[in-house]
Amino acid sequence: MPPAPPRAGACSARRDRLRAALADAHPDADAILVTDLVNVRYLSGFTGSNGAVLVWAEPARPAREDLISTDGRYTVQVGEQAGDLRLVGDREVAAALLGAAADGGVREIAIEADSMTVATHARLLAAADGVGLVGSHGLVERLREVKDDDEVAAIAAACSVADRALADLVARGAIAPGRTERQVARDLEWAMYEHGAAAIAFETIVATGANSAVPHHRPTGDVLASGDFVKLDFGAVVDGYHSDMTRTYVLDRAQDWQREVHELVAAAATAGREAARAGTELNEVDAAARSIIDAAGYGERFVHGLGHGVGLQIHEAPSVGSSATGTLLDGAVVTVEPGVYLPGRGGVRIEDTIVVFDGPCRILTATDRALAVLD
Amino acid sequence: MPPAPPRAGACSARRDRLRAALADAHPDADAILVTDLVNVRYLSGFTGSNGAVLVWAEPARPAREDLISTDGRYTVQVGEQAGDLRLVGDREVAAALLGAAADGGVREIAIEADSMTVATHARLLAAADGVGLVGSHGLVERLREVKDDDEVAAIAAACSVADRALADLVARGAIAPGRTERQVARDLEWAMYEHGAAAIAFETIVATGANSAVPHHRPTGDVLASGDFVKLDFGAVVDGYHSDMTRTYVLDRAQDWQREVHELVAAAATAGREAARAGTELNEVDAAARSIIDAAGYGERFVHGLGHGVGLQIHEAPSVGSSATGTLLDGAVVTVEPGVYLPGRGGVRIEDTIVVFDGPCRILTATDRALAVLD
Repeated sequence: MPPAPPRAGACSARRDRLRAALADAHPDADAILVTDLVNVRYLSGFTGSNGAVLVWAEPARPAREDLISTDGRYTVQVGEQAGDLRLVGDREVAAALLGAAADGGVREIAIEADSMTVATHARLLAAADGVGLVGSHGLVERLREVKDDDEVAAIAAACSVADRALADLVARGAIAPGRTERQVARDLEWAMYEHGAAAIAFETIVATGANSAVPHHRPTGDVLASGDFVKLDFGAVVDGYHSDMTRTYVLDRAQDWQREVHELVAAAATAGREAARAGTELNEVDAAARSIIDAAGYGERFVHGLGHGVGLQIHEAPSVGSSATGTLLDGAVVTVEPGVYLPGRGGVRIEDTIVVFDGPCRILTATDRALAVLD
Repeated sequence: MPPAPPRAGACSARRDRLRAALADAHPDADAILVTDLVNVRYLSGFTGSNGAVLVWAEPARPAREDLISTDGRYTVQVGEQAGDLRLVGDREVAAALLGAAADGGVREIAIEADSMTVATHARLLAAADGVGLVGSHGLVERLREVKDDDEVAAIAAACSVADRALADLVARGAIAPGRTERQVARDLEWAMYEHGAAAIAFETIVATGANSAVPHHRPTGDVLASGDFVKLDFGAVVDGYHSDMTRTYVLDRAQDWQREVHELVAAAATAGREAARAGTELNEVDAAARSIIDAAGYGERFVHGLGHGVGLQIHEAPSVGSSATGTLLDGAVVTVEPGVYLPGRGGVRIEDTIVVFDGPCRILTATDRALAVLD
């Protein structure tokens, strides 16, 4: 059974917000043709593998209703998920919507330049019949930054699945010397399914010992050993929404350098979460965490940005890094994930998924952040 | 550790084949800019998430060496995987290669129109400085249809992983009444990892009872019941190459209609495999299987094409269907997967991954195709 659509009215409210964004960015455009499938899902509820949506710049009215297109495989599904949109059935979804819009006497249509291919664009141009196509950038992605209550609830549910899965593994001693990274990763994924994950959010990272110094290490047959750092970065998907969390533990005993690095990263994570408030410049949020690591002399060992948006995709807008522009929006869901990586020795990352507000953030990933010594 | 590259010389031989294909398709192009990441891997061995390759139309010579570009994250990796290509380090990989080529005095460069985005294309045009960009279609994908020995070996290894995983589940009674589709799917995936899969090829399909009539059913909490068809469609990834196999079993007892449908699909599969010889028109291979199902009166219940290429992607060229054009190439690896789906009752699909030759094909998926009655 395909996923249930958002509650009634959610998608039409999103399309109304898109109309406003389109009018700002492209005042001459009559409509926007949305072809990115994640954006199609966001605006319509439709989750098929072939689809497009056309949203008019002005409030929809009888001759200019918002439209959806998909092919015959999805006729039933699109009715169930996006029954409030008029269907234009066709395998060539973008061309079909352009044709339907052209019948309405339009002059200019915005397309999504960051995902539409050159070949699709060329086919549209050939069929455009005098309609101008203007490239737009990130209009829907920008709307998606701010989550509504149901979206936050889905992300929170996904975070809870991840929390419970990790708690299971810790409780039954599954993260222990002698086991391989791959075994722990599979256990963690299995536990997420058992707790209700519809899917795994991304390839689970389990990195032991020196491997923990590789930011995005893929699990291997390497065996966890006493005294190792073990870094676990993983997430679940619930109702299409993702979670993202990293915890770093140590096996049997913690050496002083391990405690120091872990404390440093924990302090940076706390500072990052505290700085993550609506209206703050994205690069200032990054700086709040980075300055702590810099001051401790490990600045060159924090080799990535502080975080990223999370939602229908595991990585989405905004990017929270030192060169990011713009501000955190009220209601955005982002990760805060500083790390310090010491090549050949080991690394620590602590990552949480949070909701941004005017005041202190809400932390959706609840697993304790302290350096657990697993034995 | 990133994947080891193909053996020495394999990628340069592929680039030489691409030169010939480029000269045929775009005689005026000085070079082709390859930006699709799977194609980049195929031509260079590089597996990072940001990269592009530039291949000259004429055999590489000192001033016109083939080039690769990636960003600073991958400097070490690209040297290990694609050390025979000159590196142009830059985050904007396509623009960097275009710039390097323009320094060599080129006039026209082919781009991959089916994957390059409109936005990337616009940035390249702005930086092209008089160099013409011509859209090409499927040149590398066409080369990838024919697998070399190492590629076939990797696909065969992936098929063997899947065979052994399914045998494990059958042997220990894991496909049985009372278990859920999701449990069986998770067991199958776990068993593939245990047998050496680097990854799962695609979301495993386990469909019981009436669900088996849905060609691409996603596993649910539905419970397997005595008398049900159980359709399992799954695959493994080894060294980047995929396997794809479907078997349909029945639980406890087989009814006459189930035996009849299964025999029909098995006969169609056999006919399809026998027709799959080098030089045969793709639509004729499809017809060889489809005509058998048509003749039995179930033509409308075989709702998809007969098969598809398998390699670095789970679905790649060629598409083997009733409207496909072109012929099967010697050395192609494709699936043969007829199915009959009876809504509300159940369905059968039997799928194998095969290597195409001038004579009879080599079947890489070895699990018995007979209707096993699991009890």
